Amino acid sequence: MSTANNKGGKDKDKGIPLTVVKRLPVYQRLLSELAAKEVERVSSRELAARMKINPSQVRQDLSLFGSFGQQGYGYRVNYLLGEINKILGINVETKMVLVGSGQLGRAIANYNNFAKRGFIIEALFDCDPRVIGRTINNRIVRDVQGLTAYLQAEPAEIGIICTPAAAAQEVADQLVAGGIKGIWNFAPVALKVPETVCVEHVHLGESLMILSFKLKQMNAERINQKK
Amino acid sequence: MSTANNKGGKDKDKGIPLTVVKRLPVYQRLLSELAAKEVERVSSRELAARMKINPSQVRQDLSLFGSFGQQGYGYRVNYLLGEINKILGINVETKMVLVGSGQLGRAIANYNNFAKRGFIIEALFDCDPRVIGRTINNRIVRDVQGLTAYLQAEPAEIGIICTPAAAAQEVADQLVAGGIKGIWNFAPVALKVPETVCVEHVHLGESLMILSFKLKQMNAERINQKK
Repeated sequence: MSTANNKGGKDKDKGIPLTVVKRLPVYQRLLSELAAKEVERVSSRELAARMKINPSQVRQDLSLFGSFGQQGYGYRVNYLLGEINKILGINVETKMVLVGSGQLGRAIANYNNFAKRGFIIEALFDCDPRVIGRTINNRIVRDVQGLTAYLQAEPAEIGIICTPAAAAQEVADQLVAGGIKGIWNFAPVALKVPETVCVEHVHLGESLMILSFKLKQMNAERINQKK
Repeated sequence: MSTANNKGGKDKDKGIPLTVVKRLPVYQRLLSELAAKEVERVSSRELAARMKINPSQVRQDLSLFGSFGQQGYGYRVNYLLGEINKILGINVETKMVLVGSGQLGRAIANYNNFAKRGFIIEALFDCDPRVIGRTINNRIVRDVQGLTAYLQAEPAEIGIICTPAAAAQEVADQLVAGGIKGIWNFAPVALKVPETVCVEHVHLGESLMILSFKLKQMNAERINQKK
């Protein structure tokens, strides 16, 4: 968990509360859309309306990154986007490897939007002899047995795990042994990694169950209202 | 936002705080794993350790669903799993349609884990003439122009949007016109839907940017420690 002790100075991207961190990619997306339309300025009120939060929250969020809008003028879109890109680390190239080249792995390997933001998948791995050697989006699928050795020769920052749950921990261990510092985990299982390694989970099944729960709750409310 | 006013009685799955709702699929996954191993009982302490929360939090969460463990005995795995499945609406079949049969859409259409939990993709749609008519996991891809008419004849509960951002709002409108009550949105764009429709977003790009941010922050801490 983060705390909000250091709000300015050299450590301006330290100590940002987790709730704000989660809004950062949303600011990034909205500002990218505005920049693509060549919009020069945006007010906290406009940003707030698109994000469904209060304008004062937007001003508070952005002040954490040392970016201050001007009264009656707003924020400069390109400048603010540049600052947020720096904070998110998407102004530089980030090398990634992907393990598990099944349907989901292939979908991610083929999704070029990540590369546009500097997230480059350098190599693909799988354990299935029928998949090893195939080409996906101009990259050959390599044997996962060579994963750690590959990373020692060609360091990368992020490892993407798209394997079934049962294989995920072993893959995570190999990624860590190869010097990976960030794991993007699509396998529906909690990973044990050293404290120096960050893990971000994408639990598709859990997201679907939350939607199912909300639907069920809404149906129950509808029935209650009819009574 | 939910409130925690109704903790028992007939409305036991109403008024559950959002933070608890988000843990429900995790309980579901852990209990499924235990049930598969034929484990009969589990203590709040064991569940808490796997979820990295306090045992008292587990007891409080589960008491919201009317499930109480016994001192020194714990919770009955199968009973608790059954209750949570009911709350999540995964004890019954949920019909879904998927729009956007590109790489990501195909990955989801081929992912049989959802069907195992009762979430059935009944039909696939796309706008690309090269894709319409193809078969994916035994289902023919239909023309998205017929989406609303299809849903009026064959009602479904959840619509999955895997289209590019630019097409997502139009697809959402068609889904709503066809009577869909829940949208699982993979397109990187906020959707405008009536209040009676639930939306659950999966923003893959945002998840990757959050990982990138955490990595960058951890690197900065490492450098600071070396100074």
